[in-house]
Amino acid sequence: MEPLPWPEGEFGGRDARAERVARAALSRLVEPGDAAFGRAVRNHGADRLLRDLRGHGTLPVELARRDPAGYRVRLGPHDPEADLELIAELGGAFVVPGDPDWPTQLDDLGDAGPLGLWVRGAVSLRPAALRSVAVVGSRACTDYGTYVAGTLAADLAELGWTVVSGGAYGVDGAAHRGALAVAGRTVAVLACGIDVNYPRGHERLLARIAELGTVVTELPPGAHPTRYRFVERNRVIAALTRGTVVVEAALRSGALISARRAALLGRQVMGVPGPIGSASSAGVHALLREPGSVLVTRAAEVVEQVGLIGDDLAPMLSGPTRPGDDLAPQTRRILDVVPTRGALSTALIAREAGVAPAATRRRLDVLAARELVDRTSKGWRRRGGA
Amino acid sequence: MEPLPWPEGEFGGRDARAERVARAALSRLVEPGDAAFGRAVRNHGADRLLRDLRGHGTLPVELARRDPAGYRVRLGPHDPEADLELIAELGGAFVVPGDPDWPTQLDDLGDAGPLGLWVRGAVSLRPAALRSVAVVGSRACTDYGTYVAGTLAADLAELGWTVVSGGAYGVDGAAHRGALAVAGRTVAVLACGIDVNYPRGHERLLARIAELGTVVTELPPGAHPTRYRFVERNRVIAALTRGTVVVEAALRSGALISARRAALLGRQVMGVPGPIGSASSAGVHALLREPGSVLVTRAAEVVEQVGLIGDDLAPMLSGPTRPGDDLAPQTRRILDVVPTRGALSTALIAREAGVAPAATRRRLDVLAARELVDRTSKGWRRRGGA
Repeated sequence: MEPLPWPEGEFGGRDARAERVARAALSRLVEPGDAAFGRAVRNHGADRLLRDLRGHGTLPVELARRDPAGYRVRLGPHDPEADLELIAELGGAFVVPGDPDWPTQLDDLGDAGPLGLWVRGAVSLRPAALRSVAVVGSRACTDYGTYVAGTLAADLAELGWTVVSGGAYGVDGAAHRGALAVAGRTVAVLACGIDVNYPRGHERLLARIAELGTVVTELPPGAHPTRYRFVERNRVIAALTRGTVVVEAALRSGALISARRAALLGRQVMGVPGPIGSASSAGVHALLREPGSVLVTRAAEVVEQVGLIGDDLAPMLSGPTRPGDDLAPQTRRILDVVPTRGALSTALIAREAGVAPAATRRRLDVLAARELVDRTSKGWRRRGGA
Repeated sequence: MEPLPWPEGEFGGRDARAERVARAALSRLVEPGDAAFGRAVRNHGADRLLRDLRGHGTLPVELARRDPAGYRVRLGPHDPEADLELIAELGGAFVVPGDPDWPTQLDDLGDAGPLGLWVRGAVSLRPAALRSVAVVGSRACTDYGTYVAGTLAADLAELGWTVVSGGAYGVDGAAHRGALAVAGRTVAVLACGIDVNYPRGHERLLARIAELGTVVTELPPGAHPTRYRFVERNRVIAALTRGTVVVEAALRSGALISARRAALLGRQVMGVPGPIGSASSAGVHALLREPGSVLVTRAAEVVEQVGLIGDDLAPMLSGPTRPGDDLAPQTRRILDVVPTRGALSTALIAREAGVAPAATRRRLDVLAARELVDRTSKGWRRRGGA
């Protein structure tokens, strides 16, 4: 896509540029989710904080317990301008709070939110994230998990929802692929630098997402993933989306951490059930036993949870409608008695349904008129399969 | 078992006997769940009502709209004394409100409750029903449903709970068998006369339940099942038990009616999830999306819902504990990084966990002391499988 414009942003005047560069630089120092650091940036500005570090000044009170030397080491020789040129060359941008493309829902993370986001892709992040759902789950998922994630993501994408996931093996990959397969919108939130090829086996998938969707990370170019970064990455997925669907997760799966993070942020937590014998579903089932989480089996049910009233149609809970759904209870009871194979006499149907024969006959005529039953030589038969 | 004694009951004096005989006779006239009839019996007594019918007297106001002639026809030649002798010969009894073996939780059904219960079996109904759970589901269930129902029922029975079901094919049969297999208590509530062989294929199973458990019905000897009677039978199952577990049910399954009946009676509604692709689980999933219903995957979770606090132990929601569950977060994070195959150096573990090397080393020694990790020539390795 065209490199995103660099507007003045919320800092006003040419400071915006300086703040952006400083945030790019500081993103090398901090681990994701460092609220104290975020508070310092909010209170004093990134540019000021960076200059103090470089100029061997004292750290602000918010970082009193931190080691400035350590920070300076990590800052090292890195040139934020070079990083910004790199992301521009990749056709992306480093988006910071105040930019038009900044997804403001991330502000729900407060000072623990990202200093900025390294973004690549064909789709602008903010609009993509507005109607988005996270589809997450185990790396080591079963064929069932792969199938469910792919189908759910495809259907969500076709309903106009952006599928957000972590770009990992298993459920994440299946979800991204499902959305791509229907030319839908998908966002991969990485736990490493935007230029880092991880996981190896997803090099082409991530390239494709960057081409047709959006790849985003708070970590600077070259940064490698760590377990801690994976965990903190999940807070971004949770905050970015209206809700999180866990497709398959063992009892200790990181996907459950994502889900609980989402709940803490007031996002809807959903889970897709599976066979109770499957360890890959045990974590989801445990999640679904927690208050506030909702069992979902298809995209329409997900949209019902995260959609906007009026905007998104609520689906029926009882599955597709069938002819006869609108029948009076007694007529319904009679219809239920009429067999789909063979046939039954009015008298037998009346007995089965516990309705008087005369009334039964009248109702049967109604049902025949509505082409729900046929009268055969042997008696009444129901049309089509039950 | 020994025929149950016929005590004086709530009607006092020899009336108790007359009331019992009259209720046995009237049970031929009414369809289950006829609240108006129940009200008439409550207000005027069964004996009085029967005498009025036989003597061509006028029906009480509660039954003003009913046809006395029709009632007399149904009453016909039947001799309630003969029915009572039959049930006694079967080693059972006709239990009515006020009898010591009457399950008082049925009173929650009000005037729609049974006039009496025809009971056979080795176990008295009232104590059996006190700690009971209904395990119900589709007749046409899958192997998964059969397996789940059987296992769940066996485990519930071993935990001292009575498994109540409808004696039907599919889930019902599997539940009864599961309880019998561990010599547990099970109750079959029929929708036909206690002497009627239905369903045909369950003749031996029902005989075995009558031998080792309890078979019960509100319908008089010889009465045949009808769809309506199946539906009303479910109200007895719901009222008799502390909660209902639906194992497998299609979207229109009668098991869902049982479950919703149970909910209306303030009983706990539970469902066992399955693969979302399975039509036999679609009804359960719809049920689990309704407020108040709880997803369960094992007997302990069922008991947690229906058990008495203190009396029944609440199970862990997060599965079996694992060594290290009690670790401090940072130590836990370090343990998570240590691989179960191969090994990692302290430095790498420190980086992965985002903890200072010195602190990491200290924590690793703690973990080694607790035999959670081993130090190998190549570095640290986690004990056992993850």
